[in-house]
Amino acid sequence: MAGNTFGQVFRLTTFGESHGVAVGGVIDGCPSGLKIDGKFIAKELSRRKPGNSEFASARKEDDKVEFLSGIYKGITTGAPVAFIIKNKDQHSSDYDELKNVLRPSHADYAYLQKFGIRDYEGGGRASARETAARVVAGAIAKLYLAKTKIKFCAYTSQIGDVILKKSYSDVDIPSIDADMLYCPDKRVSAQMQKLLKQVKAEGGSTGGMVTCFIQSLPAGLGEPVFDKLQADLAKAMLSIPAAKGFEYGEGFAAAAMKGSEHNDAFISKKGKIAFASNHSGGIQGGISNGEDVFFKVAFKPVSSIAKTQSTVTLDGKAAKISIKGRHDVCLVPRAVPVVEAMAAIVVMDHLLRNNILSR
Amino acid sequence: MAGNTFGQVFRLTTFGESHGVAVGGVIDGCPSGLKIDGKFIAKELSRRKPGNSEFASARKEDDKVEFLSGIYKGITTGAPVAFIIKNKDQHSSDYDELKNVLRPSHADYAYLQKFGIRDYEGGGRASARETAARVVAGAIAKLYLAKTKIKFCAYTSQIGDVILKKSYSDVDIPSIDADMLYCPDKRVSAQMQKLLKQVKAEGGSTGGMVTCFIQSLPAGLGEPVFDKLQADLAKAMLSIPAAKGFEYGEGFAAAAMKGSEHNDAFISKKGKIAFASNHSGGIQGGISNGEDVFFKVAFKPVSSIAKTQSTVTLDGKAAKISIKGRHDVCLVPRAVPVVEAMAAIVVMDHLLRNNILSR
Amino acid sequence: MAGNTFGQVFRLTTFGESHGVAVGGVIDGCPSGLKIDGKFIAKELSRRKPGNSEFASARKEDDKVEFLSGIYKGITTGAPVAFIIKNKDQHSSDYDELKNVLRPSHADYAYLQKFGIRDYEGGGRASARETAARVVAGAIAKLYLAKTKIKFCAYTSQIGDVILKKSYSDVDIPSIDADMLYCPDKRVSAQMQKLLKQVKAEGGSTGGMVTCFIQSLPAGLGEPVFDKLQADLAKAMLSIPAAKGFEYGEGFAAAAMKGSEHNDAFISKKGKIAFASNHSGGIQGGISNGEDVFFKVAFKPVSSIAKTQSTVTLDGKAAKISIKGRHDVCLVPRAVPVVEAMAAIVVMDHLLRNNILSR
Amino acid sequence: MAGNTFGQVFRLTTFGESHGVAVGGVIDGCPSGLKIDGKFIAKELSRRKPGNSEFASARKEDDKVEFLSGIYKGITTGAPVAFIIKNKDQHSSDYDELKNVLRPSHADYAYLQKFGIRDYEGGGRASARETAARVVAGAIAKLYLAKTKIKFCAYTSQIGDVILKKSYSDVDIPSIDADMLYCPDKRVSAQMQKLLKQVKAEGGSTGGMVTCFIQSLPAGLGEPVFDKLQADLAKAMLSIPAAKGFEYGEGFAAAAMKGSEHNDAFISKKGKIAFASNHSGGIQGGISNGEDVFFKVAFKPVSSIAKTQSTVTLDGKAAKISIKGRHDVCLVPRAVPVVEAMAAIVVMDHLLRNNILSR
Repeated sequence: MAGNTFGQVFRLTTFGESHGVAVGGVIDGCPSGLKIDGKFIAKELSRRKPGNSEFASARKEDDKVEFLSGIYKGITTGAPVAFIIKNKDQHSSDYDELKNVLRPSHADYAYLQKFGIRDYEGGGRASARETAARVVAGAIAKLYLAKTKIKFCAYTSQIGDVILKKSYSDVDIPSIDADMLYCPDKRVSAQMQKLLKQVKAEGGSTGGMVTCFIQSLPAGLGEPVFDKLQADLAKAMLSIPAAKGFEYGEGFAAAAMKGSEHNDAFISKKGKIAFASNHSGGIQGGISNGEDVFFKVAFKPVSSIAKTQSTVTLDGKAAKISIKGRHDVCLVPRAVPVVEAMAAIVVMDHLLRNNILSR
Repeated sequence: MAGNTFGQVFRLTTFGESHGVAVGGVIDGCPSGLKIDGKFIAKELSRRKPGNSEFASARKEDDKVEFLSGIYKGITTGAPVAFIIKNKDQHSSDYDELKNVLRPSHADYAYLQKFGIRDYEGGGRASARETAARVVAGAIAKLYLAKTKIKFCAYTSQIGDVILKKSYSDVDIPSIDADMLYCPDKRVSAQMQKLLKQVKAEGGSTGGMVTCFIQSLPAGLGEPVFDKLQADLAKAMLSIPAAKGFEYGEGFAAAAMKGSEHNDAFISKKGKIAFASNHSGGIQGGISNGEDVFFKVAFKPVSSIAKTQSTVTLDGKAAKISIKGRHDVCLVPRAVPVVEAMAAIVVMDHLLRNNILSR
Repeated sequence: MAGNTFGQVFRLTTFGESHGVAVGGVIDGCPSGLKIDGKFIAKELSRRKPGNSEFASARKEDDKVEFLSGIYKGITTGAPVAFIIKNKDQHSSDYDELKNVLRPSHADYAYLQKFGIRDYEGGGRASARETAARVVAGAIAKLYLAKTKIKFCAYTSQIGDVILKKSYSDVDIPSIDADMLYCPDKRVSAQMQKLLKQVKAEGGSTGGMVTCFIQSLPAGLGEPVFDKLQADLAKAMLSIPAAKGFEYGEGFAAAAMKGSEHNDAFISKKGKIAFASNHSGGIQGGISNGEDVFFKVAFKPVSSIAKTQSTVTLDGKAAKISIKGRHDVCLVPRAVPVVEAMAAIVVMDHLLRNNILSR
Repeated sequence: MAGNTFGQVFRLTTFGESHGVAVGGVIDGCPSGLKIDGKFIAKELSRRKPGNSEFASARKEDDKVEFLSGIYKGITTGAPVAFIIKNKDQHSSDYDELKNVLRPSHADYAYLQKFGIRDYEGGGRASARETAARVVAGAIAKLYLAKTKIKFCAYTSQIGDVILKKSYSDVDIPSIDADMLYCPDKRVSAQMQKLLKQVKAEGGSTGGMVTCFIQSLPAGLGEPVFDKLQADLAKAMLSIPAAKGFEYGEGFAAAAMKGSEHNDAFISKKGKIAFASNHSGGIQGGISNGEDVFFKVAFKPVSSIAKTQSTVTLDGKAAKISIKGRHDVCLVPRAVPVVEAMAAIVVMDHLLRNNILSR
């Protein structure tokens, strides 16, 4: 069984390769009666496109969504919503030099082992371009969720060794989109930009981190045992290219904490049950408890670098490689809208799942 | 859709509550012709039982597996393998005091919000006892995988602020099971035990970390896009009660690394393609590359503590709570076999998935 | 991927063999808050047990359901409902003679080809005993649906060449259970009994037909394209052992009809939209339209007969076989509650599915 | 959960409406390394297009497949194969008169009840045009299966009251495609054509039947209990628009048979186990036994007819309707390639499923 589908009720199947005709997706399970706001979707998509900063790939991905089905007079019908984003500005000659050598830490080798197919142009299904389809589906989920109070917010919280130390709850949301790197702190962003300039000059790349929070999520989302809300978020996030880790609430820091520190006491607030703290990150026993959900996703540095690396040819001979395509210095800013989209897809799916079985 | 099933081909559905008749599971998709080694399964199960150390719950979970189906003359038939582990030694009076108050950071409140059911005895499906069924399924996966060279190894790498700094590759495997806490370093284990004694005396609890590695995994496991091997491992691990984070390879540290540091160069080794390093953690583009897979799982402190905590009653009045049941001081040692079992289930499932579609 | 699970939201997984410890099932996705009426379930189960008539197997299947999980103080909790029915009265010596010969038109040979396992005692997963678990799940679905007006009714409409010619809408429902063969017409049942006596005396068996109708089904159940309501009913019915055909509405007779005869005209009834006829059988475009759903399921004769048959041994030598176990002369009366149970499971599943996505 | 996906391993998701941009599909799970023969696919597709006979709709569906993904240099890569067939020759003005009235026995009313959407142009997802995507997927399955000896063959066996009485095994396969109605008997086809002329002159429509057989299917396909081969075939066939019934082997006739007549005796043929007859239709216990699989699918008459019918307006007032679009007189010939395609998809899926778990 292949793995190009995500979700149980709001089911997204993506398809397409960067060197082919188009990337796209089909959403089966999109509720009927939803007004499709094309401008909002285009805006979401433009947030992940390369070329938003000087550190991103110079490729021009115009990223215009064309809807093929499931919408009648601007309203969803309950039928599958299929869409494509045509590929333009392909330089397949960029890849000619790569024909016979393996790119270190790229998907080439593992794909070749698995499928017996050597598709050296772009990254096949491992290409970050595939995430454009996720952003479209995430935008549709957000349009549906607009009738609730649920809000999603992701931002760049680390690039290389430059770390934004602020808690998510102190972040000024409008300042995120105002920043070229989606970092909600001008001073920290300036340091990040300085680092990126230097790394770019070296022909290198760097890793980083995205923090995401979800506000006003109702209690009750997530399913006991295997489909816990955090389990599905973790899967969603680790399915993003280059993601290396996921933590929610106190995350890895919880390992060093005591129960008396970590537990979130219940308090009585105007006669209603409330929480004194939110170390849990809004999920307990796998189910949302009504508090903010927050989590972090770590990303490795981009593997395609201009710096010369040691590698081998397909027939196992030592070789040198310098990858000259138009690559990002750091994927993290472009991952910000993807993290947000995947969070929206997970929440949408669990909201619909929850409507069926709970009270 | 409820979430009590894991896996696509080797599908485990678990059921049961700690205060009920039994916990158990059904494996649909267990290949035929597998000899069921009851002793091995019993041994695996005994590794997670409480009472292995003085820091674990004093509950006696005898944990005898009874197979109900799918096995004929000791050999699997290809039919679903159903099994139960009967519950014994239930002290439902332990829970009487908890009837009207909410346990901080426990699943109570979220379950009540979701299902409208107040089941205060044990943790319902959020009980760690559910994981016994996972260990049985993991043991069956290991029996099947015994004909390959794949090996799974998990151990305690942190308890509270006591951290085992050794790399996984320096671990002496037999020393893991020789240690009460499944920590493969006597000196570090002694420090952990000292900490646990102190925490226990305080009526408290502490978090910790499990490290796991998988050796001799063939290249080609994992499916592009959403069912990447790391995505399914992340989901599996975050579905374990109390897990707060997952990272593989360099994990969160990768965020601060440069591409030239993180990339795993290819080298020519006796004419064959090999890797100079394994920062990637054995997975590239979501697919295993033949190197060791390794990852870490962070666990929060046990929420049930004897120390007095602030809480509220079900009708929203302030109250105090001191949870007197027989609880673990730290879940981590008992999580070690569960992490290993879930890793085995993920690998088994992906191995069977891979057999279908790849060459 | 094995196939022991049915349904998308109300998901039944069955397990167990007739010669093993028990048969049973797990329902994942049973809504919380449902009162489990043990007497009703026992009554449903007793309808399919052998020994209700002289033409059924003389095996005593006492068929007592034991619930293992998912129920707290008599009410479902939203957790998986697991249950078993222990096997008694096994005569495995009945099967000794069959060890080395293949039973004609039985599942033996195909199972051996598929799994490489020769399990000659009972029919393994192909045994009709497996359907007991379906009846339990169907009974639980009916308990849930009791708050709606939906009613399920199946009956014997043919045995051998004795055919009940009455339309389903002329059937007197209470007379079904009053009849030993679940045939709602005394005169026809008498003919059927006469035929069965004769067939039994010959050491033979016969086929037959079950008709089923569902009343007060709301409009809107079924999903476009592949999960049409009739497609899921067809799959459910053809999954019952010995079923050979399914038709709904006018069924095979529709092939000879003209559009002007078959179309169900709309009429205005007290200012509301109504149907002048129901040739469609309550489903149009794959979705229920609010009219009665009705369908027929054809069953082949029982393959285990006492009459001497030609066969071969496992090593391919010609042999004779006379199957002397305690077999049904005609499965149809015992299939009646199974057809009804599967119909209830399909409707329950589609009702829950529909709650999510439609208005 | 919506229902636009079919299959477990070879998974087809279809999308699109006849009045929209395109219909299409995504196949996730298509094995890598398969050469895509565009001519073969085009030929398969041309078999279902309207305008092959004077009795089919005069709409011109040019039906050119465009592949969007999953194919590199003409070979499948293991990535999802997405494809579209653009819609042309739409006469949406054809539908203006239908805006306010319900078409009897069409999907309009049920869709309106379910989705609250009134999409009166074409049939939305209930349109027969959706089946073009199935034919493309079926053609790809056939290309894969070409390396086996498995052969699929469907033909028209009844139109109205004109019935082809020949057994499937007496059919001359080349004569099927040679006939305008896909009926492998010239004399019978002439009678069918005569009937269709008459029905067309009346402004009416008629039902019919498709018979399909699968040769050289290996033993072992199908999964015990719910995913029996016949159960999945039944679901596949009943998901085709206008299908009313499915039977395999002796089908409904088995109801009147005795076990001694219906059982397929084993014989010894050159020292190998063989069958003396094939009343079972090649499937026993839900699993293929190596004999030919054969089945029939009944179709109702087309509901869109020019003859004046009674109906109601959307606000419940009595009205008359005469549907003047370019409709088929009988769907059956165009259903022939669809039945064959769905059979190929079911077999392909079960073949891949079987590869995993059986020996």
